[in-house]
Amino acid sequence: MIALGIDPGTASCGFGVVALEAGALRFIDAGVIRTDPKAPDADRLRHLADALRAIVTEHRPERVGVERLFFSRNVQTAMTVGQARGVALLTAAEHGLPVDEPTPTEVKQSVCGHGAADKRQVAEMVGRLLGVSLAGVADDATDALAVAIACAFAGAAQVRVAR
Amino acid sequence: MIALGIDPGTASCGFGVVALEAGALRFIDAGVIRTDPKAPDADRLRHLADALRAIVTEHRPERVGVERLFFSRNVQTAMTVGQARGVALLTAAEHGLPVDEPTPTEVKQSVCGHGAADKRQVAEMVGRLLGVSLAGVADDATDALAVAIACAFAGAAQVRVAR
Repeated sequence: MIALGIDPGTASCGFGVVALEAGALRFIDAGVIRTDPKAPDADRLRHLADALRAIVTEHRPERVGVERLFFSRNVQTAMTVGQARGVALLTAAEHGLPVDEPTPTEVKQSVCGHGAADKRQVAEMVGRLLGVSLAGVADDATDALAVAIACAFAGAAQVRVAR
Repeated sequence: MIALGIDPGTASCGFGVVALEAGALRFIDAGVIRTDPKAPDADRLRHLADALRAIVTEHRPERVGVERLFFSRNVQTAMTVGQARGVALLTAAEHGLPVDEPTPTEVKQSVCGHGAADKRQVAEMVGRLLGVSLAGVADDATDALAVAIACAFAGAAQVRVAR
């Protein structure tokens, strides 16, 4: 089970790819897609779509997780994050991939075992679960890895239920 | 100059297509793209993207206008509208079309000559400018036609400046 996690944003969109095999997690890839702040919105979203498609083509995830956010600094920020979410969700649908939309609390619950974990605890647990050091890794990429882990666990649970 | 105006939304997305020829506006098409409220977000956005692409292919607009919204009932609504905006902007970028993102005030200014016009005045003026009756036409489609008119005027002004 390969899962792609996305922490959506137009200026900076985190992505993380993990594999869950026989109950063990493995790190595959993570990073941040950045778009030119001086470019028009439409061009930035196209850049984002192209980058996400390239990631899907390279890593062939079986599931995609896109964090669902309920809070935002303001309506304008929510709109901008929504635009990036729309492009991420569309990319998943166009590749026929099932999508999880966990809330931040659900991601923390899944990664740390409780929904009240703070950012540092989540990052520490992501590194431990994947057996890699995340020192120097951008926050957005670490967040996306947490989403990918939650998505992989959710996918594995569905497979167990189906059996 | 053929312009496509979009009033973005996931449940209901208005579109309007107008032509501006020798200073005269002409109605071409308008309607509402509706998506299944029971379907997952990603599938709804894909339906929206497919429908918008079909409209672009059919009417070959030279410019696209997507209303820019600063206010919203709440963050969740802003996020959902943002998702639809993202898909609309991406569709325009993928067809290489220039995009206008007028605010509601700019649309009213362009259609009615002043930014304080109310919804009914805008609808009346849209009908008069296009020489068609908009009785029975959905609000989202009328709003999209207003955006298309603003977009066509903006495009024509750019052409004049360029000359």
